[in-house]
Amino acid sequence: MWYYAAHLTDFSIVMSFVAHESLAEKIAAHLAERIIKGELISGERIQEARVVEELQVSRGSVREALLLLESRHLVTIQPRRGAMVAELTAERVNGLYDIYEALLTLLATQVALQWTEENKMPLLNQAMKLQSPELKKDKFLFMLAGFDLMRAACEVINNPYLSTLLSDLQPAIQRTYSLSIRFSQEGLDRSIAFFAKVVELILARKVAELPPVFREFSLYQRQLVLDAMAENPMPALD
Amino acid sequence: MWYYAAHLTDFSIVMSFVAHESLAEKIAAHLAERIIKGELISGERIQEARVVEELQVSRGSVREALLLLESRHLVTIQPRRGAMVAELTAERVNGLYDIYEALLTLLATQVALQWTEENKMPLLNQAMKLQSPELKKDKFLFMLAGFDLMRAACEVINNPYLSTLLSDLQPAIQRTYSLSIRFSQEGLDRSIAFFAKVVELILARKVAELPPVFREFSLYQRQLVLDAMAENPMPALD
Repeated sequence: MWYYAAHLTDFSIVMSFVAHESLAEKIAAHLAERIIKGELISGERIQEARVVEELQVSRGSVREALLLLESRHLVTIQPRRGAMVAELTAERVNGLYDIYEALLTLLATQVALQWTEENKMPLLNQAMKLQSPELKKDKFLFMLAGFDLMRAACEVINNPYLSTLLSDLQPAIQRTYSLSIRFSQEGLDRSIAFFAKVVELILARKVAELPPVFREFSLYQRQLVLDAMAENPMPALD
Repeated sequence: MWYYAAHLTDFSIVMSFVAHESLAEKIAAHLAERIIKGELISGERIQEARVVEELQVSRGSVREALLLLESRHLVTIQPRRGAMVAELTAERVNGLYDIYEALLTLLATQVALQWTEENKMPLLNQAMKLQSPELKKDKFLFMLAGFDLMRAACEVINNPYLSTLLSDLQPAIQRTYSLSIRFSQEGLDRSIAFFAKVVELILARKVAELPPVFREFSLYQRQLVLDAMAENPMPALD
């Protein structure tokens, strides 16, 4: 055993550090949105000094933000070359969708087994939101609402490890997903149908029917992404 | 598009920041080992000042290390109370093993499909190491060798997302795994048999037979962990 004494002074220290991290997180979110929307493209250099100047933040916070984005697979940092937007390759897209499919299938299966009358409401509200015609007009907002549905599902099962892994993968998935829906209107329509089907199966607790639905959507999505990557140049998200 | 100009000065800055992170990583590894070995127990306070004094490092590095450990689920940081060793509960153990099972099944399946005569050697060497009677005498080293096998498997398939997720989960799994093997000699023997079976199926490319093997081992392991948690007090690892 190591520590016994109470230490009352730690609160402010922990909080100030969290506040510091939070600035790096904001910078990371700002850069992530540009990468996800396609304004910063595969292989493009990210110059620290430019970010420092544009956002009026310290160099240390920008470096920390770039390391966060590296850990989330949106940025690569190379000796002598600095940071650049991570390259998408067919191999990486397949790797990403393999994992995402496995984790989402697990999430949906657990939600189907564990939902109750009490905890299902936020999930249903979020699912209904995704069917609204309003949302269909703004692809970026539609995508974010899809991830809100995933987070509502995470609330039902209370598995902190799964929530963390899915949120770590989220930026990389948002990047490819955004690529697919701006490439193809059909991609958006299939997404809407997919979400409706998954929620229907969850509410009916039809666990065995979930894996093939995720498999099919995962294969369809990754093909859209690969097709979009072959298009050159890609339009940025409106 | 954002940035065009080359920036030659970034190298030293990125490196110095990485070096800084690396110190926090070392402190985190040191604390993680104590938690994994059971020297620091569930709910125990971790006092920053004590770590600063013992390791002769800066307070900032210790805080960063604690945040790293929080993101890896070994530590919880609470307002007013500071850092403590994350509590294990039955719900969390089940959540952890559900995910680990899903990701390892995916890893083994992809390795079974993708290994070649050239890339399989490091995997085989690591698998043979796990069968050596020497290793059986040191449970902590045996456990680390098991994770080396997982890393060798990751090298075969080259899925950077899967490698990252598995390495993020590793400390939490090492903690519960170490609990199970110090609780039960049978746990260690079953692990050896499990590793041998998985490698056999991978080499025979028997993909369909992998999921039930992982399922069975996952259910067995988590039950050992739950049994060990019910024991009080637990012996620390030798």
